[in-house]
Amino acid sequence: MGMKCIGVDVGGTSVKIGLFEITGELLDKWEVRTRKEEGGKYILPDVARSIRDKMEEMGLSLKTDLAGIGLGVPGPVMPDGFVEVCVNLGWRRMNPQEELSNLLDGATVKSGNDANVAALGEMWQGGGKGYKDLVMITLGTGVGGGVIIDEKIIAGRHGLGGEIGHIHVRDEEWEHCNCGGVGCVEQICSATGIAREARRKMEASDKPSVLREHGGNVTAKDVLDAAKAGDELANEVMDVVGRYLGLALSMAVMIVDPEIFVIGGGVSKAGQFLIDVVQKHYDYFTPISKYKGKLGLATLGNDAGIYGAARLVL
Amino acid sequence: MGMKCIGVDVGGTSVKIGLFEITGELLDKWEVRTRKEEGGKYILPDVARSIRDKMEEMGLSLKTDLAGIGLGVPGPVMPDGFVEVCVNLGWRRMNPQEELSNLLDGATVKSGNDANVAALGEMWQGGGKGYKDLVMITLGTGVGGGVIIDEKIIAGRHGLGGEIGHIHVRDEEWEHCNCGGVGCVEQICSATGIAREARRKMEASDKPSVLREHGGNVTAKDVLDAAKAGDELANEVMDVVGRYLGLALSMAVMIVDPEIFVIGGGVSKAGQFLIDVVQKHYDYFTPISKYKGKLGLATLGNDAGIYGAARLVL
Repeated sequence: MGMKCIGVDVGGTSVKIGLFEITGELLDKWEVRTRKEEGGKYILPDVARSIRDKMEEMGLSLKTDLAGIGLGVPGPVMPDGFVEVCVNLGWRRMNPQEELSNLLDGATVKSGNDANVAALGEMWQGGGKGYKDLVMITLGTGVGGGVIIDEKIIAGRHGLGGEIGHIHVRDEEWEHCNCGGVGCVEQICSATGIAREARRKMEASDKPSVLREHGGNVTAKDVLDAAKAGDELANEVMDVVGRYLGLALSMAVMIVDPEIFVIGGGVSKAGQFLIDVVQKHYDYFTPISKYKGKLGLATLGNDAGIYGAARLVL
Repeated sequence: MGMKCIGVDVGGTSVKIGLFEITGELLDKWEVRTRKEEGGKYILPDVARSIRDKMEEMGLSLKTDLAGIGLGVPGPVMPDGFVEVCVNLGWRRMNPQEELSNLLDGATVKSGNDANVAALGEMWQGGGKGYKDLVMITLGTGVGGGVIIDEKIIAGRHGLGGEIGHIHVRDEEWEHCNCGGVGCVEQICSATGIAREARRKMEASDKPSVLREHGGNVTAKDVLDAAKAGDELANEVMDVVGRYLGLALSMAVMIVDPEIFVIGGGVSKAGQFLIDVVQKHYDYFTPISKYKGKLGLATLGNDAGIYGAARLVL
């Protein structure tokens, strides 16, 4: 029986935990509820108890069978594991990596930002398997990102590495982004952003479209389904999304030039259709060379976080 | 007497060579002419002979006194030192790192792109001394860049790392950049770009300005001098330059988040005035956090290349 490692992905409603062989095989995964009461003080003790229970159930020893535990945190994590603030969990000025280690008899614990950790997961066992330099972009409610160079996360000196969703790309935007900026990638390319673009396009023209049946409740999935089915207005929306996503990826080319871009998150369920929409614009913005990172899809879905967290300790 | 290292910076008209203590002290520097005839086949033999002569003159042995030789090349360099093409020198499909090593009895030779190498030099002994994560941007005839994370160059998988000058930032541009793109940072923020912006501003308005004395021959230095002296039109030009440079730096924040940005090249002779012009826009495009890379000036001038090349072998 080989050494194991554990990946913990702390989210706002549940904590996902996975037990892995150090070779990358997922042995078991489970969830515990995220108790956010009292500044999130119960979260790590709940995680520690759950890990102890699972180890006991499997007949494994914390001391001798476990290489370590990785922890994905939904907020900026400093190189020493310090977390200034984690809004979704209520955490403030603490070091969850140290705390979890203390709760587990001094076991090795390493932590990182959840989006960065997901990128590492996709590199290890997902859409980026076999590559060492990867940029991941996650298109969900927001837009997350992670930069991996030579198999290591570029977290940044102030925890801003991979915050690709908050690059300014659109000068003519007027609404503000959550980050305080105006014209961020996230405002256009997130699921929320795609729906907003669709609402704007519907308001701005009289063009017939199946999206009009949904009206103000149109979702990103509606837009993608309609675009795939050939709806003209939906394709115009996706062309805008593809343009700004392709532009954002081209910026990463000129800064870190990865081997592959891995696109994940709910929006990426549109698959090759999404890649094709982005590729055209990506190529347009990178005439500098025909040799550049290819575009691919994430494959681990919601498990990317536990995979990447486990990979942190290897 | 401690170990030495040598930095070689190959340029289109001359090759700069520096002899250093491995602690970073420059002992001697000299130049040899770049002979570009016959596909640049004489360049490396000339460099090797010059190094042998200098070592002999100083009573130093290639075998026992030299940690190695670093080589900055004006073009993309693959991780193994391979150079597909180096337009300025006439080089095609060769490995200058291997060739120079062969010409010097198998001495350790490491190579890198000259802009990346200059960034490493500024990190070692220049404006980025004391920092490990740095992004350099060089504002000269063109706009070069280099990304250093954890004291290592991010050259990129296809040699495009740090090509910040070719990020697309201006949608309404109509002229093409040398890279084939439209609206690149280089088209606005290089010395050439600043002069072009000034010509455009003069044509677009009747506003009086001391720049009008220079007419179509206006230079970036004219613009910076006039802006510092309070000329309104020149300050409008620099505000445009500062906006796009600040925007480009904000993109690097959201991707690699360095400790410091080091601005070099001829345009950076404008000093703190330039920093102030850029800082305002940089802050505007990074509302996400007050903790982010500071802006600083390069200090090594044309010697950054030899410093960085020497640092490559340490």
